[in-house]
Amino acid sequence: MTLTKAPVRGMKDILPHEMAIRDYAVGLIKETYQSFGFTPIDTPSMEHIGNLTSKQGGENESLIFKVMKRGEKLSAAKAATSIDDLVDSGLRYDLTVSLCRFYAHNMDELPSPFKALQIGNVWRADRPQKGRYRQFTQCDIDVLGDSSMLAEVELIAATSTLLGKLGFRGFTVHLNHRQLLKAMAEYSGFPPDSGEKVFIILDKIDKIGLDGVSTELLAAGMPPASVETYLSFFKPQEGRDLLEVCIGKLTRPDGREGADQAFANTIGAPIEEVQTIMACIESIKKSIPADFKLAFDPALVRGMGYYTGPIFEITLKEAGSSVAGGGRYDQLVGNFTSLQVPACGFSIGFERIVSALMDKGFTVPSAAGKVALLAEKDMDREAMGAVLLEADRLRREGYAVLVAARSKNAKHQRERLEKEGYTDVRHFEAP
Amino acid sequence: MTLTKAPVRGMKDILPHEMAIRDYAVGLIKETYQSFGFTPIDTPSMEHIGNLTSKQGGENESLIFKVMKRGEKLSAAKAATSIDDLVDSGLRYDLTVSLCRFYAHNMDELPSPFKALQIGNVWRADRPQKGRYRQFTQCDIDVLGDSSMLAEVELIAATSTLLGKLGFRGFTVHLNHRQLLKAMAEYSGFPPDSGEKVFIILDKIDKIGLDGVSTELLAAGMPPASVETYLSFFKPQEGRDLLEVCIGKLTRPDGREGADQAFANTIGAPIEEVQTIMACIESIKKSIPADFKLAFDPALVRGMGYYTGPIFEITLKEAGSSVAGGGRYDQLVGNFTSLQVPACGFSIGFERIVSALMDKGFTVPSAAGKVALLAEKDMDREAMGAVLLEADRLRREGYAVLVAARSKNAKHQRERLEKEGYTDVRHFEAP
Repeated sequence: MTLTKAPVRGMKDILPHEMAIRDYAVGLIKETYQSFGFTPIDTPSMEHIGNLTSKQGGENESLIFKVMKRGEKLSAAKAATSIDDLVDSGLRYDLTVSLCRFYAHNMDELPSPFKALQIGNVWRADRPQKGRYRQFTQCDIDVLGDSSMLAEVELIAATSTLLGKLGFRGFTVHLNHRQLLKAMAEYSGFPPDSGEKVFIILDKIDKIGLDGVSTELLAAGMPPASVETYLSFFKPQEGRDLLEVCIGKLTRPDGREGADQAFANTIGAPIEEVQTIMACIESIKKSIPADFKLAFDPALVRGMGYYTGPIFEITLKEAGSSVAGGGRYDQLVGNFTSLQVPACGFSIGFERIVSALMDKGFTVPSAAGKVALLAEKDMDREAMGAVLLEADRLRREGYAVLVAARSKNAKHQRERLEKEGYTDVRHFEAP
Repeated sequence: MTLTKAPVRGMKDILPHEMAIRDYAVGLIKETYQSFGFTPIDTPSMEHIGNLTSKQGGENESLIFKVMKRGEKLSAAKAATSIDDLVDSGLRYDLTVSLCRFYAHNMDELPSPFKALQIGNVWRADRPQKGRYRQFTQCDIDVLGDSSMLAEVELIAATSTLLGKLGFRGFTVHLNHRQLLKAMAEYSGFPPDSGEKVFIILDKIDKIGLDGVSTELLAAGMPPASVETYLSFFKPQEGRDLLEVCIGKLTRPDGREGADQAFANTIGAPIEEVQTIMACIESIKKSIPADFKLAFDPALVRGMGYYTGPIFEITLKEAGSSVAGGGRYDQLVGNFTSLQVPACGFSIGFERIVSALMDKGFTVPSAAGKVALLAEKDMDREAMGAVLLEADRLRREGYAVLVAARSKNAKHQRERLEKEGYTDVRHFEAP
């Protein structure tokens, strides 16, 4: 009988070298986030299929690994005509659905606000491609039950501190606000209900640039005047930065049709929120050793439709793209309970961070020296006892000790051991 | 819209208090096993359905959560008559299948022998019952590529050391050998091919006692003389312990029919192996601070049919049952590759250990003091900046700091925070 030795399609085995880096990153994540008052929790990998297909998950809902019913329920469902009748659960595609369910279910036993840290695997039946796998680790921090901007500020401060500790420097935290995003489109006079279409195009700005966005908006039939007005939000003007440009336009409508006082009023709160976040991060920025900058980015969209307030994303030169993203989602927990619970989260791209560390040749600082004790092959009982005692003695001195028999190809064995970090390879001779 | 807030049936959310204990245990496991030269690896949660249903998994194979095919493959399979045609993978029910697949797939990149440490979730669609869940964590160490008893000795030494570090004392490591188990049945003259039936009954000895085993063997139609001979293996005699009794009978057949010299010869190697393990553990036992004993236990069966040599199990008074089990399985890797790879593993019952720690009121020693800074509600930007700076200052001093707004019910808030370990709860007034 021969079974299949490759992992299932699109998933991967984690070998010792990568695993050491993953363990190191997890340790640093837990230590750093816990110092900011985030508390580790965990949820099952499987969720009710109804929770995963409630239209909150966007395109991830089409990528669910579905789990079949079992036993009598499966027998009863066999007569059904639809495949969906055979399914009762699925593997989670993110940690946010599970977190909202968790909080709704357990809030009576948790402090308020509750600051959660969850590190776990998620699964998406995506088309496999280089560097993207169908099982991957997510790492989320969330603040539940705090409607103030303190939540956003601590999420950004904690995540920037973490990236700094991981050795990353000079990254940018992009900040926008869902209500400003909508207000900018409304101000530009796009046809009613064209917001989502506009944002999907805007979201491509990193790939196609501002000119590309302009071309695609016009191709999608948007009025040229609206497109021109809209693009002006993304260009600094006469020494004013993008936030000043945005505020200037939205609060002083320049007599533009439709931009009345009522409209200006509705954007007062989101502007205040963005300014609070920027001012507070500014006040603690110099104590975070990461040399990062926080920038208002009116072109930041964040795909998920469930965001309701500030949204943010971190780009890192080393990773070539976003390594963390999040925002406020005040409506999501309400899908599970009649209570409205304000909530805000930040998810770091664990796999991208591990890749970036591996790409730059990072090696984990070893706490203990590693000694390999090579004994003769086919030792008798006494010799085995002697090498075990020597290993024990070295472990007491703080070394990690591997005991192994000497193999015929001594050079090859030594090389392999050195690759595993055993720089001290000793021959042991029984006394 | 209201979604389901309870976890899927038979699975559980992990709340902060339990999570802290789990994280602590994982940390100690990694530290201890790595000091014995075991290297962390990881494998996907999903396995090819064929690998999971190869008859090596015993009754676990009937408990698989099966994952449905997707996209075109699902469409193509819809016409099929069997439910199994809709499935291409399943969630792993243990870590051993995945480890063997992993080693067969990656052995060219690994040292030999390879000492693996794997901590991960497994899933079994068991009938939910108190304290048993359908998703649970397993923690396995395995030595691949070492046919000597050094593997067994290090597995037992490392696991005993770990249990000692977790605060457990006075446990018993039970040791038996698959070939001796068979030899004892053969010596007793049970009908040919009745071995499995005999072992299934013997395996109940913890619940039904020696008398119960006798009754059931007779009820199953076993010859009374065989039953009597067999039971004598489990009773110390005239100052001889069970290993001496076993060796005495098997090597000096007392003229019993069928117990010839050839038979005595086949049990020479397994006896030598058991004696080597016992002698080597004896020689290092006093340096393992756990006050445990290693005992030959001729009634130890271990359910899985794939064991080929020594088998072992640890019982702990606090847990009321086995907390770890393992043995040698020299044939399993060969299911995935044409090479024969000797292998031996020890799995600790992570959930039982966590339960035992929780039952005895264990609290995790906190590395950092925990301070909660309670600020006024609806702070302005300057007050928020001030409290964040104070939090940063305390974090630099080594404290974990939670910043939160004061709630109206101050007493309740303080209690909740103290439950989370925030013994130092301070009111912060902006300057």
